[in-house]
Amino acid sequence: MNIKNGDTVLIYTPDKKTYLVTVEEGKRMSTHLGELALGDAIGLEYGSAIYSSLKHPFLVLEPTLEDRMMKVKRFTQIIYPKDAAIIIMKTGIKPGMRVIECGAGSGSLTIALANAVAPGGRVYTYDRSERFLENAKRNVEAAGYGDVVELKLREAGDGFDETGVDVVVLDLPSPWDGIPAAARALRGGGRIASLSPTYNQVEKAAGILDSHGFVFLQTVEVLVRHIRVAYGKTRPEERMVSHTGFLTFGRKALVKVEAAAEEPGGAEEAPEETGDEPGE
Amino acid sequence: MNIKNGDTVLIYTPDKKTYLVTVEEGKRMSTHLGELALGDAIGLEYGSAIYSSLKHPFLVLEPTLEDRMMKVKRFTQIIYPKDAAIIIMKTGIKPGMRVIECGAGSGSLTIALANAVAPGGRVYTYDRSERFLENAKRNVEAAGYGDVVELKLREAGDGFDETGVDVVVLDLPSPWDGIPAAARALRGGGRIASLSPTYNQVEKAAGILDSHGFVFLQTVEVLVRHIRVAYGKTRPEERMVSHTGFLTFGRKALVKVEAAAEEPGGAEEAPEETGDEPGE
Amino acid sequence: MNIKNGDTVLIYTPDKKTYLVTVEEGKRMSTHLGELALGDAIGLEYGSAIYSSLKHPFLVLEPTLEDRMMKVKRFTQIIYPKDAAIIIMKTGIKPGMRVIECGAGSGSLTIALANAVAPGGRVYTYDRSERFLENAKRNVEAAGYGDVVELKLREAGDGFDETGVDVVVLDLPSPWDGIPAAARALRGGGRIASLSPTYNQVEKAAGILDSHGFVFLQTVEVLVRHIRVAYGKTRPEERMVSHTGFLTFGRKALVKVEAAAEEPGGAEEAPEETGDEPGE
Amino acid sequence: MNIKNGDTVLIYTPDKKTYLVTVEEGKRMSTHLGELALGDAIGLEYGSAIYSSLKHPFLVLEPTLEDRMMKVKRFTQIIYPKDAAIIIMKTGIKPGMRVIECGAGSGSLTIALANAVAPGGRVYTYDRSERFLENAKRNVEAAGYGDVVELKLREAGDGFDETGVDVVVLDLPSPWDGIPAAARALRGGGRIASLSPTYNQVEKAAGILDSHGFVFLQTVEVLVRHIRVAYGKTRPEERMVSHTGFLTFGRKALVKVEAAAEEPGGAEEAPEETGDEPGE
Repeated sequence: MNIKNGDTVLIYTPDKKTYLVTVEEGKRMSTHLGELALGDAIGLEYGSAIYSSLKHPFLVLEPTLEDRMMKVKRFTQIIYPKDAAIIIMKTGIKPGMRVIECGAGSGSLTIALANAVAPGGRVYTYDRSERFLENAKRNVEAAGYGDVVELKLREAGDGFDETGVDVVVLDLPSPWDGIPAAARALRGGGRIASLSPTYNQVEKAAGILDSHGFVFLQTVEVLVRHIRVAYGKTRPEERMVSHTGFLTFGRKALVKVEAAAEEPGGAEEAPEETGDEPGE
Repeated sequence: MNIKNGDTVLIYTPDKKTYLVTVEEGKRMSTHLGELALGDAIGLEYGSAIYSSLKHPFLVLEPTLEDRMMKVKRFTQIIYPKDAAIIIMKTGIKPGMRVIECGAGSGSLTIALANAVAPGGRVYTYDRSERFLENAKRNVEAAGYGDVVELKLREAGDGFDETGVDVVVLDLPSPWDGIPAAARALRGGGRIASLSPTYNQVEKAAGILDSHGFVFLQTVEVLVRHIRVAYGKTRPEERMVSHTGFLTFGRKALVKVEAAAEEPGGAEEAPEETGDEPGE
Repeated sequence: MNIKNGDTVLIYTPDKKTYLVTVEEGKRMSTHLGELALGDAIGLEYGSAIYSSLKHPFLVLEPTLEDRMMKVKRFTQIIYPKDAAIIIMKTGIKPGMRVIECGAGSGSLTIALANAVAPGGRVYTYDRSERFLENAKRNVEAAGYGDVVELKLREAGDGFDETGVDVVVLDLPSPWDGIPAAARALRGGGRIASLSPTYNQVEKAAGILDSHGFVFLQTVEVLVRHIRVAYGKTRPEERMVSHTGFLTFGRKALVKVEAAAEEPGGAEEAPEETGDEPGE
Repeated sequence: MNIKNGDTVLIYTPDKKTYLVTVEEGKRMSTHLGELALGDAIGLEYGSAIYSSLKHPFLVLEPTLEDRMMKVKRFTQIIYPKDAAIIIMKTGIKPGMRVIECGAGSGSLTIALANAVAPGGRVYTYDRSERFLENAKRNVEAAGYGDVVELKLREAGDGFDETGVDVVVLDLPSPWDGIPAAARALRGGGRIASLSPTYNQVEKAAGILDSHGFVFLQTVEVLVRHIRVAYGKTRPEERMVSHTGFLTFGRKALVKVEAAAEEPGGAEEAPEETGDEPGE
């Protein structure tokens, strides 16, 4: 895989900083370790180095999904890769699926969803802010997913155009505004995910999800703790991001089943209680 | 999407337990709430209910990737969906990629990797235990990924057959045994991930990764905390899985760049330090 | 410090279990490693061993506060030592102080409070359940704090007899029931602590604390993660207690000060923002 | 309790900052909300306000132990109150005890230990840096514990003067340097605590503790997570201190008991496995 003119690459500096840039013939980038001619990367293999005017090596790496998410132009707090990864895992999104996202924000989650449904799938992204939507659109296109994502300017309460979708993801200040429309848009067995920073939002959303027939409700928070690895002195990092949001999940039932007394244990929490095909 | 004879479905019981079963005409499953005729599900939409002999409704849901991972037949500790999700995110695995996994275990991660590279990609899974490999193969086939995964009986130290692969994932007691072969098998810029329960493994692996030219090294642990949501009495769960393993990541550089004094902060930890195209 | 007849000791078994027992001449204790004659401990130094009928050594240790708290007879969920330690630190309880506890439960926190105010101080413990109060009383006496603690049967809403106390600790399902009485009982600058398992209780209590003139409000949760240390294979434990309760703290102001827009950062969170005697 | 000339108080500003100051007739303190005459506090009750030149109320509070620890003059990373609280709880320090601290640092833990042994007890604090020791001495005296603490300039490896002490606390880069001396200084059944930031230190220290006859070894880390409580929008804080150090605990046995295969579970981890007086 050789680098071509116009490719977006991740520049990894000798002091371990990263920059997402587009490689173009004649384009220059100045750093505190000298100036780079980005065109030098054309024709190289990923993992190669280009050299600054001060002879420092800068690696040219292929951007991962995480890199692209973290480097979007931000008008809002972005959805973190850790949360996007768990959302995609728990909602079971995969290539070919049709997914609605309500609350585009800066488009970081949109990019992750587009990456997960491609090829063959489609992401329908709604936001009520024209300014956010345009920024999200630019970020999605820069990440190469312009043909996978359809962006629509609309309030959550005004419903979605699509029906029979596989998954709906809500990132709304009032997630309950989007739940009735999500229930209508989803196919039977389809999954919903809702992201919210506060306990209050989670509690209210869960009640509305339950009353709209969603089952298998779970709420989790995802903590990623970095470890500082160094020979003979390895330890956890001293500071961490300790809260981004709570993630609430459910699945659309077509019939009303009575709520049992017990809450569902998370699948990961209680693997020993389950099994396949008991008592056959 | 209607359920067909032979489909694998997730049965969701009135008391919120789940079972992964294959729907077959004439097949019966006994539960403490009565007997189910699984064939009743044929032709129904996902999200519908079938009724037990005692008239209790059991929902028939589509299994997600998480469901399939958690329900594999286990001969070993499985890789948890949370860790698989972060591995796939951080290594940037996507459809069409070629991925080596060394240490198949029970195949739960294999299924996640297969799901991530399909369509068009391929997973090459190595294990030195014939018994584990056969179990993993059965689990992979049951999940529907038999044609995506190639399983090979081999010691980590004996090298891999593939070259130019995009990602290598190591789940080995001695991850350093697999690192030299991983370095040879990966293309430039390709990613490596290594899972280990102890900090000792992490520390040694990080040193070997560095000496084999891997850069952008990060080690994290992923904690998923479940929240018990109930109206007026919402709180975190009282017990949680507090450790499954440390995840170490790196990318293959084709040239040696001098190690800077400072460790790289995790991308998520320091988004404010980065940006796109500075100084152009 | 030699062990005397009637002393309460902690027996530490060869397989690392612990039992809190009273040493008495002639008293026997049977274990799966043989029978112990507890009187053998009389006259020994702490840290010595007594031997079972099967010749296994059992260490005789001095019980710490933590041991005593964890071994109380339980009619209720106990307050954990970790939470008690942080409560005592953050409320600044020390010898000679007068402290009210409302919600005696099984008395584990009562013991910790009594230990913190002795010598010279006093703990007034209220509970509305006669059964709980009697159990707590027995536990407190067994721990040797009978003369430090006064136990009273009463509803939280019915007020306290004491005034000018230094600290009030509330462990109530409806902490707001006890806040008005706490505000009356506390001296100026006195501290309040409230323990609650749910965020709903915390949110409501914080509002009532604010309206009763408490300032410097903080809410924390305390997580203690155990590390499994073994040569060459050290790692965090796989399971942990992930929630016992939220702890809310405040201090009694004698005058109403307007609430500033910003919430107080926790002292530990922002040490760099503070200093002593700025601008003098 | 009225405020006297010379008292150290905590000033709580209208925007919720805190300053530890000494009240003196004629002393002035300038703030961004106007100038304070600290002498105005003399004769007031704690919890009262004094007013700045711009008429803003500043509360005069009594400093707690936590306040004093967080406000020491720092030449080193301080021990956090959360860790000090757990150390004191798990080692069972109480009034009258004799405690050795090796590694005075800035004296924050020294103050906490002094507070815990008073009245009647004594803290012997060693440090090899004259500069640190002098700063710690000033901090200890400012906190009012000058008569409880004895400070000594010495290397950890050179041993302690005291014998038969109840508890030894090590805060050393190489804790194993202090363990042999600690074993000699402790009475039977006495407790040791060691603080270390890295896994490597913990692992090595645990081995040396075991070989010096310490039992009941436990290693924990203490995480305090702050909750941002606001009506209708309560959530965990977004950033936290995620690592200060690991705390390792042990108790001195006078006889060698064979190590059992299983590690001791932490007392808090497994309350259900224990009880008092089984099988009597």
